[in-house]
Amino acid sequence: MITLYGTAHSRTHRVLWLLRELGLAFEHIPTDFVTRENRDPAFLAVNPNGRVPALVDGDITLWESLTINLYLSRRYGGEIAARGFVEETLAMQWSMWAAAELDKALFLAATNLRFFAAADRNPDDVALALRKLSRPFAVLDGWLTDRRYILGDRFTVADLNVAAVLSLVRLCGLPVEPYPAMSQWLGGCLDRPAADDYLRLDFKLSRLPPENYIFMFL
Amino acid sequence: MITLYGTAHSRTHRVLWLLRELGLAFEHIPTDFVTRENRDPAFLAVNPNGRVPALVDGDITLWESLTINLYLSRRYGGEIAARGFVEETLAMQWSMWAAAELDKALFLAATNLRFFAAADRNPDDVALALRKLSRPFAVLDGWLTDRRYILGDRFTVADLNVAAVLSLVRLCGLPVEPYPAMSQWLGGCLDRPAADDYLRLDFKLSRLPPENYIFMFL
Repeated sequence: MITLYGTAHSRTHRVLWLLRELGLAFEHIPTDFVTRENRDPAFLAVNPNGRVPALVDGDITLWESLTINLYLSRRYGGEIAARGFVEETLAMQWSMWAAAELDKALFLAATNLRFFAAADRNPDDVALALRKLSRPFAVLDGWLTDRRYILGDRFTVADLNVAAVLSLVRLCGLPVEPYPAMSQWLGGCLDRPAADDYLRLDFKLSRLPPENYIFMFL
Repeated sequence: MITLYGTAHSRTHRVLWLLRELGLAFEHIPTDFVTRENRDPAFLAVNPNGRVPALVDGDITLWESLTINLYLSRRYGGEIAARGFVEETLAMQWSMWAAAELDKALFLAATNLRFFAAADRNPDDVALALRKLSRPFAVLDGWLTDRRYILGDRFTVADLNVAAVLSLVRLCGLPVEPYPAMSQWLGGCLDRPAADDYLRLDFKLSRLPPENYIFMFL
């Protein structure tokens, strides 16, 4: 029995996508960070970090959305699972790369384009985020220039994890025309029927004052 | 034949530690980001991200320090390797957790305690980083309260990866007394003879002006 904690308007959408690709049955408990359900003792007993998503699958309890997806696809996956040790390693590398190179900069852009109230948005921060993203975007674009998907010729969990992180690109309308291979690949991934939860990624955040602002993005 | 790129005064120290634990022979090319060797075309052909470490092992080329360690220990590791699918998954989860929850906040603290010139350091940013770190520190401390090591009773790549990220705690003298289980575990990990490269983690960085400062930590 698989239980997934977290609302679709959170990083949980990454795992919802994977579960729907695999066609797995699961119980969904939409623990909501907006109402601070993620700080309830009952949820902290599942994930002491107080973050969603979290997953319980029989004896194993997991956090970290991209790890959860690599776990589920290795355990249950058919076509989209990585095949063998080298593909599993590359899927992990690209997942860690997305978390390290994309996640925080995308969040800075997304807060200032969508999740902050209009009066709190700063276009200079969007520009800064895009400047930071220009290097990893070029890397992914180059990688995909002679590959249809990240691991080669089929859609796998590596694509799902990286595209799920990058779903903010479409949600916020970030300009990616300079990266045609990445842009075409991302469109194909996000158009998959199982991916549509990313469109629910909407909530409002308050901007912290300048002296604490960086706290949100660490 | 294993080739490792990157100087010990970079995240490469994480992989040097792992390679020494495993006793593996390797060629070390100390590509140095201080002198911008990481931007040379020859290195960009290995890692288009222009980041160290990077590893070439026969047919496979890898980036992302924590992925490299999980790969090497799964391929070559004896005692410190994760055993079986569940342990491999938990080692990956804790590695991704360290990257997501610790890495950027530790870097903010470390720059303002050590890597910036004295005149550029801001104690308020150290306080901000410590506030951000208080949650993951409490999580790890709680996890280790009834476990000797992250996966149970033996030192594994999960400990190595998390402790390597946390080596900045000792290098910068961050206060961790409120986390006795974490503190004792970290001391034991960093005292291992193979770990001593973390002490070479020294270089100088320039602080960006306030309007761009966040760029360094995305």
